[in-house]
Amino acid sequence: MSKDQKAAPLNIAVAGLGTVGAGVLKLLQAQADLIEQRCGRRINVVAVSARSKGKDRGIDLSAVRWYEDPVAMAADPAVDLVVELIGGSEGPARDTVATAIETGKHVVTANKALLAVHGTDIARKAEAKGLTVAFEAAVAGGIPIIKGLREGLAGNRVSEIHGILNGTCNYILTEMRTTGRDFADVLADAQALGYAEADPTFDVDGIDAAHKLAVLASVAFGTPVDFASVHIEGIRQVGAIDFDYADQLGFCVKLLGIARRTDTGVEQRVHPCMVPKSAPIAAVDGVFNAVVAQADFADRVLFVGRGAGAGPTASAVVADLIDIARGRSTPTFGVPADQLGAATPSPMESRRGSYYVRLMVLDRPGVIADIAAAMRDQNVSMEQFLQRGHSPGEAVPVVLTTHDTEEAAMQRALATIGALDCVVEAPRMIRIEQF
Amino acid sequence: MSKDQKAAPLNIAVAGLGTVGAGVLKLLQAQADLIEQRCGRRINVVAVSARSKGKDRGIDLSAVRWYEDPVAMAADPAVDLVVELIGGSEGPARDTVATAIETGKHVVTANKALLAVHGTDIARKAEAKGLTVAFEAAVAGGIPIIKGLREGLAGNRVSEIHGILNGTCNYILTEMRTTGRDFADVLADAQALGYAEADPTFDVDGIDAAHKLAVLASVAFGTPVDFASVHIEGIRQVGAIDFDYADQLGFCVKLLGIARRTDTGVEQRVHPCMVPKSAPIAAVDGVFNAVVAQADFADRVLFVGRGAGAGPTASAVVADLIDIARGRSTPTFGVPADQLGAATPSPMESRRGSYYVRLMVLDRPGVIADIAAAMRDQNVSMEQFLQRGHSPGEAVPVVLTTHDTEEAAMQRALATIGALDCVVEAPRMIRIEQF
Repeated sequence: MSKDQKAAPLNIAVAGLGTVGAGVLKLLQAQADLIEQRCGRRINVVAVSARSKGKDRGIDLSAVRWYEDPVAMAADPAVDLVVELIGGSEGPARDTVATAIETGKHVVTANKALLAVHGTDIARKAEAKGLTVAFEAAVAGGIPIIKGLREGLAGNRVSEIHGILNGTCNYILTEMRTTGRDFADVLADAQALGYAEADPTFDVDGIDAAHKLAVLASVAFGTPVDFASVHIEGIRQVGAIDFDYADQLGFCVKLLGIARRTDTGVEQRVHPCMVPKSAPIAAVDGVFNAVVAQADFADRVLFVGRGAGAGPTASAVVADLIDIARGRSTPTFGVPADQLGAATPSPMESRRGSYYVRLMVLDRPGVIADIAAAMRDQNVSMEQFLQRGHSPGEAVPVVLTTHDTEEAAMQRALATIGALDCVVEAPRMIRIEQF
Repeated sequence: MSKDQKAAPLNIAVAGLGTVGAGVLKLLQAQADLIEQRCGRRINVVAVSARSKGKDRGIDLSAVRWYEDPVAMAADPAVDLVVELIGGSEGPARDTVATAIETGKHVVTANKALLAVHGTDIARKAEAKGLTVAFEAAVAGGIPIIKGLREGLAGNRVSEIHGILNGTCNYILTEMRTTGRDFADVLADAQALGYAEADPTFDVDGIDAAHKLAVLASVAFGTPVDFASVHIEGIRQVGAIDFDYADQLGFCVKLLGIARRTDTGVEQRVHPCMVPKSAPIAAVDGVFNAVVAQADFADRVLFVGRGAGAGPTASAVVADLIDIARGRSTPTFGVPADQLGAATPSPMESRRGSYYVRLMVLDRPGVIADIAAAMRDQNVSMEQFLQRGHSPGEAVPVVLTTHDTEEAAMQRALATIGALDCVVEAPRMIRIEQF
């Protein structure tokens, strides 16, 4: 261990020089000596690839080989390891990683989309060649959650993970709660501030969180990555008024990714949740991310930190680089890819739990009786009922919560309720999660 | 990586079969297959040592070699790795670890006292022989904080760590707050429940937290372990009434370990703190532990989990075993022991921050003027002042908070105030930490 200071440098190539790529180069430069102490050798950036060569990124690239084509760079025999920061599940990112592995190079990537869709296949190919694919930066930015689950909790069976996996959504929900403004308004601000993309679909529709959840679930449970089975709902349907009701009922509204081993298989879902204000995750606001793991021996462990940004993401990329430079290797998803145990996806319809439902109803006698009958017919038991204001003949908001029931029954009840004459808008439902 | 399934087993010996030792054996048995998948080889317990052979620990030890003397066990050439769970900075624990290293064996230990006092020396000896000394279980039980700091944040310079490092104290403080009972009362209950030892000194006087802090600081800052420089105060002086005032002032009372790089060196201290209710650590109650790290690239990262108990501690021990079984090695404190950079201890007197002071004073004219004068004479500026009730001629509690000032000035002011005729009890002071 202390004898390897004179080991050859690790020569790396960086594909993609956006915020994160530039952050990685800056970190490697700023902490070069510290990093060498920690891994016993230098980490040298020998090549980079990005779309625009001329752009000023505040870093000196004069000594580094420039590639127009990241795939050509990935094939460069002078390179030991490729850092893939292009993004996207297909195209150049996928080709770059594939070429790196084919030509015998380790890969470090922040690309959750690629891993969510092709992770198991990539892991198999890399492991067959004795290569490492590391991806701490793909989930929850600066939080060392992959390492925490895969190595820190390696002696445990994890039965559940849940987390705030998308900082953009958490920022929007936090702003909606604290300012009372509605989704569209806050989103526009978030875009102006750079917290949300011009096309916010991946974030606000829950896809980004679902990519991350699928990767986390694989690491937590030792199962193949199964993005296709994730139930996904975004935050567009959360209304400003839901925060008032949530507060009154003792809840916070969070977009969570939840993965759980159940008797029927593995549940994976991303959707807005009502969580008790006392849940540790309820206090995680703004652009912060958080992950909770429930493990059989360690019990509950919570990790909180910044989920995005140049510094935190670069920190995660460099942690992976240091691991590889020191020769620390771990199977991609904790257990060797050819031993990942296939799990039956547990369908959303079998989710058990309680529900928050918000309705706009005409304020007239008999309405509540009709709603209650629809619930009773599906064996859904109501816990609370709130009607705000009283305006005979007008539409008023009504909120109810249920006791634990099955999603399928709840969906049938909601279909019946939505079709009632006195219900003037599609019912809005938010699942309650009692952590 | 995927080729090493047929590697020879890792033969381990366990010294100490108390709660944690038995927990480790149970975990290794329960998850044997999972562990083999994760590290590519079996982990076999070949020898154990404990004081009483006959005791029923709920584990079958018939196939395992029994040693009366852990030091003799540590010298057994059939053993690859010694797990030291005896405890204590001297005596058999120290001798067992020394013998293990002398005879070429890796060491996994949960012994914070040993590491706090002899950690740097042990690391130097082990590293000189290419051996690993791993100690995830020594700090914060089931939270993978050593791994998180040493590997997960390896690309960062950490400027500060603070944490709830002793579950017994956190349990007592939480009970005091929620029930309004006083220290002695709650301590007696905690002892009956097994949350506190018959001799609670190590816990309630802050020594255990200080051991852990010294180890954490070394890992966080890359400095030699320096337990002797930790300023230590326990929780015996915290009164039931302080929780009421804290609540009124927007604070929670927590026993924290705080280590910080300052301009003058490294500050290490354990003492009760007033922390804002909004601080993430304020919500960590009961026997839970938490650690916050402030890193230059990752920014703030928080880890929360169970700090003690058979399961969580065994989880940490086994994570270390899996690392070593896989051949993953890391310098003991993150950088090689012979490169740890000595740091000047920053004396407690130079701590800057604000203060909460509680006094019992005779309720008569001029008292506040005398107190205020003592503060003014030391350039300590008062922020708030609260007098509860009004009983002319009687002793009444008075609480004040200060603006930021230097500890030395505050101590001088308190000495003057304590000597005033009208102050009938020694002043109680709790430092305010604004995280």
